[in-house]
Amino acid sequence: MAKAKTEQVRRAAVLVAGSWGTALASVLARNGYEVLLWTRNTEQASSINESRMNAKYLPGVMLPEGLKATVSLQEALSGAELALFVAPSGAMREVAKQAAPFLAAQTLCVHATKGFEADTLKRMTTVLSEELGRAPEQIVVLSGPSHAEEVIKRQPTTVVVASADMKAAEQAQDAFMSSDFRVYTNPDVVGVEVAGAIKNIIALGAGLSDGLGFGDNAKAALLTRGLAEIGRLGAAMGANPLTFAGLAGVGDLVVTCTSKHSRNWRAGHMLANGTPLGEVLTKMGMVVEGVRTTRAAFELAKRYEVEMPITAQLYKVLFEEFSPKAAVEHLMGRLKTHEIESIG
Amino acid sequence: MAKAKTEQVRRAAVLVAGSWGTALASVLARNGYEVLLWTRNTEQASSINESRMNAKYLPGVMLPEGLKATVSLQEALSGAELALFVAPSGAMREVAKQAAPFLAAQTLCVHATKGFEADTLKRMTTVLSEELGRAPEQIVVLSGPSHAEEVIKRQPTTVVVASADMKAAEQAQDAFMSSDFRVYTNPDVVGVEVAGAIKNIIALGAGLSDGLGFGDNAKAALLTRGLAEIGRLGAAMGANPLTFAGLAGVGDLVVTCTSKHSRNWRAGHMLANGTPLGEVLTKMGMVVEGVRTTRAAFELAKRYEVEMPITAQLYKVLFEEFSPKAAVEHLMGRLKTHEIESIG
Repeated sequence: MAKAKTEQVRRAAVLVAGSWGTALASVLARNGYEVLLWTRNTEQASSINESRMNAKYLPGVMLPEGLKATVSLQEALSGAELALFVAPSGAMREVAKQAAPFLAAQTLCVHATKGFEADTLKRMTTVLSEELGRAPEQIVVLSGPSHAEEVIKRQPTTVVVASADMKAAEQAQDAFMSSDFRVYTNPDVVGVEVAGAIKNIIALGAGLSDGLGFGDNAKAALLTRGLAEIGRLGAAMGANPLTFAGLAGVGDLVVTCTSKHSRNWRAGHMLANGTPLGEVLTKMGMVVEGVRTTRAAFELAKRYEVEMPITAQLYKVLFEEFSPKAAVEHLMGRLKTHEIESIG
Repeated sequence: MAKAKTEQVRRAAVLVAGSWGTALASVLARNGYEVLLWTRNTEQASSINESRMNAKYLPGVMLPEGLKATVSLQEALSGAELALFVAPSGAMREVAKQAAPFLAAQTLCVHATKGFEADTLKRMTTVLSEELGRAPEQIVVLSGPSHAEEVIKRQPTTVVVASADMKAAEQAQDAFMSSDFRVYTNPDVVGVEVAGAIKNIIALGAGLSDGLGFGDNAKAALLTRGLAEIGRLGAAMGANPLTFAGLAGVGDLVVTCTSKHSRNWRAGHMLANGTPLGEVLTKMGMVVEGVRTTRAAFELAKRYEVEMPITAQLYKVLFEEFSPKAAVEHLMGRLKTHEIESIG
């Protein structure tokens, strides 16, 4: 439903001001929205508004006109045509709870967070649906191969917006679409959310493999099996298998496992070199979604009775002091003879 | 059919002595085979036998005991339990024609060449079948994410062997399988051969994209669409779609598009920087299968009435002096709104 932009000011709220939130806020601002980027941190808000940069998360890049930071949720959400939730998965429920009172019924809700809620194992649309008092199909998920560092610099990027309500997905498509940020719709919310979450586990594994000195052949094998693992869990949860062959599936998996920008890959690389998990997380200075997702996926695999060997090995490395080398060797040496059976 | 190795000497012939042939010959030699590596080039044969290295294609790596080079096809094939054909696609028919008179009926024939015959658009098993006078199911194809440079150094690697005759595939699995070279069987010969050929085109495209300064997001999008393109042609030719989600599909695609070892990627990268095709091919000093495969796939797309946009753009760049920048921009900007339709 692409429609001509009207003269009227269109407002959008983005919660919160991490690297991905800031990059997506910039996409909206370039498309003509007045964007308010919400952060709890007064100092960060002032710094963004004064320097026109998000110095902590996307240093060195000027933010577009029409993007302002605020510490007031009420100000951010008031009159917003679109609210984008990009909090870390562990903070999503709390952010949504605080946002709910200020959210108008007609505001389009989109999220771009990759992970599950740790305790409940719920997907992010479910968490938002519960806290915002809306049906899940009224929440759109945005995902795909999209490093914030490239999006903010207008490097060509493609993403998917998914909702069971195609009208809502098309509204989100219309809001974000530009010549360098191509947006495709997909009705499969479960597939897009499962793929986005699990790929962070595989990226941790890819970082481990690279950090241990294994080569590109080994990483490609890990990635292929990772895609099968994502597909098995997704299918058990009701996803469309075709989603995993698309941008939110294989596309995002590839970019996360092979790019220097991926923080999950970097975390895995540090673990391989013997850095303890606590120190890795401190050094990263940002949330490493793959770590908490490993715990959630480990539980989901049990609940849905699905085989997830990479997740299981990563779980041992992260939480049971299992040797990274033994884990990767175990994954490489698994006895399987017929490939089609293992990916079917 | 894993069987205990007998005391009897097992012999294998590998034709020809390029980087991949030499690496696979080394795998067989480490597994206890006496391997004769055939080359037309007397100087190369002497150099390999004297220096224990393939200085031209895999410099700096010592070859295992039990591997010798020869210029005599008769010597190479005489008494061979296994014959591995790894000639470039353009030379395969001629090599097979010359080998046929010396090939015993019980010799297992395997090939590991990625491409189509230029004039006839035939797959390599078809070419071998015709020249060797055997049914196509008696020829096994070996493929997967496997840079020769890593295999020769015993970096962990996984590959697929495919044949409609599972017994033949299992014989090949038994011959090549080791702790660092894991071999899986797959009955889908068409899928494995189509995936192995077309991924070289996508790698050329990835090299173009990287060479033009586009980022990882763009490359992931190209790779995702590339996988869809491979799948469409494969399905039209009778392949099992699951093959494209496996090692010979997405696995090989990823390694070829993202690894520094990929010569197709390097060729694309040079083209992006304005180097003319002729000069690129001269500089590479090896066959760039992606270039000739682009022409073949362009014709196959017409024959099977399949949409192959990446192949079509690459064809224009390679053979019609179309600007690489315009080609990549065209690919990024294609108007598609519903993702599932485009990958379904």
